[in-house]
Amino acid sequence: TVNGARLWQSLMDLAEIGAYDDERTGLRGVNRLALTDVDAAGRRQVIAWMEQAGLTVRIDRMGNIYGRREGSHPTAAPVLTGSHIDSVATAGAFDGCLGVLGGIEVVRTLNERGITTRRPIEVGVFTEEEGVRFGTDMLGSAVAAGRLTLEYAHALTDRDGLTLGGELARTGFDGPVEVRLDAPHAYVECHIEQGPVLAENDVEIGVVTGVQGISWQEITIHGRAAHAGTTPTHLRADAGLAAAQIIVHLRSLVDSGDYGDLRATVGHLIVHPDLTNIVPARAELTVDLRNPDDAQMARAEAALAAFLRDLAGSQPGLSLTTRRMARTAYVPFDNGVQKIIAQAADDHGLAHISLLSGAGHDAQEIAALCPTAMIFVRGEYDGISHNPREYSTPEACAHGIDVLATTLLRLANQ
Amino acid sequence: TVNGARLWQSLMDLAEIGAYDDERTGLRGVNRLALTDVDAAGRRQVIAWMEQAGLTVRIDRMGNIYGRREGSHPTAAPVLTGSHIDSVATAGAFDGCLGVLGGIEVVRTLNERGITTRRPIEVGVFTEEEGVRFGTDMLGSAVAAGRLTLEYAHALTDRDGLTLGGELARTGFDGPVEVRLDAPHAYVECHIEQGPVLAENDVEIGVVTGVQGISWQEITIHGRAAHAGTTPTHLRADAGLAAAQIIVHLRSLVDSGDYGDLRATVGHLIVHPDLTNIVPARAELTVDLRNPDDAQMARAEAALAAFLRDLAGSQPGLSLTTRRMARTAYVPFDNGVQKIIAQAADDHGLAHISLLSGAGHDAQEIAALCPTAMIFVRGEYDGISHNPREYSTPEACAHGIDVLATTLLRLANQ
Ligand SMILES: NC(=O)NCCC(=O)O
Ligand SMILES: NC(=O)NCCC(=O)O
Repeated sequence: TVNGARLWQSLMDLAEIGAYDDERTGLRGVNRLALTDVDAAGRRQVIAWMEQAGLTVRIDRMGNIYGRREGSHPTAAPVLTGSHIDSVATAGAFDGCLGVLGGIEVVRTLNERGITTRRPIEVGVFTEEEGVRFGTDMLGSAVAAGRLTLEYAHALTDRDGLTLGGELARTGFDGPVEVRLDAPHAYVECHIEQGPVLAENDVEIGVVTGVQGISWQEITIHGRAAHAGTTPTHLRADAGLAAAQIIVHLRSLVDSGDYGDLRATVGHLIVHPDLTNIVPARAELTVDLRNPDDAQMARAEAALAAFLRDLAGSQPGLSLTTRRMARTAYVPFDNGVQKIIAQAADDHGLAHISLLSGAGHDAQEIAALCPTAMIFVRGEYDGISHNPREYSTPEACAHGIDVLATTLLRLANQ
Repeated sequence: TVNGARLWQSLMDLAEIGAYDDERTGLRGVNRLALTDVDAAGRRQVIAWMEQAGLTVRIDRMGNIYGRREGSHPTAAPVLTGSHIDSVATAGAFDGCLGVLGGIEVVRTLNERGITTRRPIEVGVFTEEEGVRFGTDMLGSAVAAGRLTLEYAHALTDRDGLTLGGELARTGFDGPVEVRLDAPHAYVECHIEQGPVLAENDVEIGVVTGVQGISWQEITIHGRAAHAGTTPTHLRADAGLAAAQIIVHLRSLVDSGDYGDLRATVGHLIVHPDLTNIVPARAELTVDLRNPDDAQMARAEAALAAFLRDLAGSQPGLSLTTRRMARTAYVPFDNGVQKIIAQAADDHGLAHISLLSGAGHDAQEIAALCPTAMIFVRGEYDGISHNPREYSTPEACAHGIDVLATTLLRLANQ
């Protein structure tokens, strides 16, 4: 078993970098958007911890960081673990960080025990997993796995028009190493569940069977600014109303039950000029769809597209454009790795179940390169995440990393 | 008749102060929010023009500006005209400015003709008519008329938390004069229609019978930030969805026809934290209702309040608060002043109709002090306003101010 107290301390220390006081909840949250100054500070802290643990650090052209512990067969493909340390703007301390700091904690434990594995073990930190700054999630791992190109990623811009490539250079994380990853032997990622299933089933550990599909798009609606008092309703092209109709329609698609286990979220929404007595001339919103079934996802996307076509005709002068931000299919994880994880949980006497991930994870990208699976750790408060209330107990975190340690050890000795 | 070319030149000159290039339309718009630096610059220009026209200028504690031309009976109550020069953020050149610059043009014309009226004539410029910066419209005139207190107005804040009182002091428009206005003999305001009615009826001049009721409130919705991928729909408290439901419901109230000539607009709408994969924790929106019938307005407000109560119960963890921003009843204008305006239009050979105002105007506040009515000038493009496309022809503007001149002359010789 790993040193749970040391793991917890590193989680709490990292959470201070980018910490903020949440006015609503009175809690301390984390705001560490990818490639901001605080993310860079967090990265430097993680690199320092890696080096203290004896890892050899390399940084690639996407800013992905890898810390390597040699094995007795240095030429054997390494076993990779890791996650991300970028966060959303209203985050807690655990999302992503548990996987990175847990990986480092496993290395510290192996060092203390004097254990040498056959294969090298590497701990990865992937850039812009959240996708909230540059619009595409799992970005660093997707480029490492070859699904997206480096050029695409470098050209992405944030809301201020800053490019990812520019921000990599500014923060000094435009590393020299080729991004495309040589196939590891296996990849295992430990992450908080970010949902209620483990707690509802009263188990400690989730063996993740795969990740549901994710569809992100941005919709821009062009209407016409007009005076709220004088403009007859039939002469309006109200972009804000159209945005509201999309949001309400998305919920009706979910509630219909006709699209399987569809989830739909509009998290970003702005209107322009955003003034009390002016009919909005323009609205911009994002649509986040999730579905474990690729065919149902495609049907839901088609239903939304049809609704958008009708909507454009519903008010004269209204037009809409859509932009694809991110799209991933359902990704099944490797059965063999899942079995090793389940066995490791049993070895530690920890109850476990198998479950599908609702959130996207770097593991779904690396799964294209090698056998991959994930370990989920349960969260409190219905597993709330992307929220300062996000919380997993010290015990839950340590249990997850115990399972990670045992799993990595087995894989690294294969 | 007045000098239409000179009037037009002053409208175009004032529109340069706070001008911006509208990216969408390619047009030049005006952004001169109340008590910003550009509004202060516009005020100084107007004061310079007033002084050139021989007016004696005074500024009150609300920043309202009055330019006075003496009459042969200086102790007789003056005839007041005027309007405002503050604008919304996406405005044209005419809203408010026509009434102020038209008033100055009338004075110039009287000066050139060597005409002395029995009563003094005053031209007023009222502060924050639009209500978009500090949240309450017709603010300067409402305080001048005694409907709102100076303390209330000074304490209002903009989105950056700056107070109106502080901004008055900063811009140097915290004048020494008592705000409460001594009852004028009459008030007449010339304004663009900001709607399609005059053009549809192919007439030049509108004799305004009154102003419909205005109800502004701000609604804040508190939900719970949560992960878009992992949070089951039934566990969400989605503030953005609730905002969308309000917007769609408001349109259904309008479309039902059950609330008379109700108009409803949500012009301001923000969500927090405003990120793609986070269920909105908070939403803020404004509701602008208009109704020419006070009873129907009250019914519409009650229907909205009932909907909000139900909405709060529709998702566990959702709560709502509302804040009243502005509320005015239907204001009928004086029949006698309307008759003089109609007669003046006839004298100038200009076709006219009577109509109700869809927009709020300073005239509705001053109407509490003295006989009041308004002259409307037609606009192009369905009378679009609060938009850079807002446009009235030089001829239409001159015709409106011709009618204003004749009306003021008659009233000032009563
Ligand atoms: N785990 C996680 O929060 N990933 C971000 C991508 C997503 O929205 O699922
Ligand atoms: N005339 C005008 O635009 N007034 C602003 C107040 C309103 O929204 O009606």
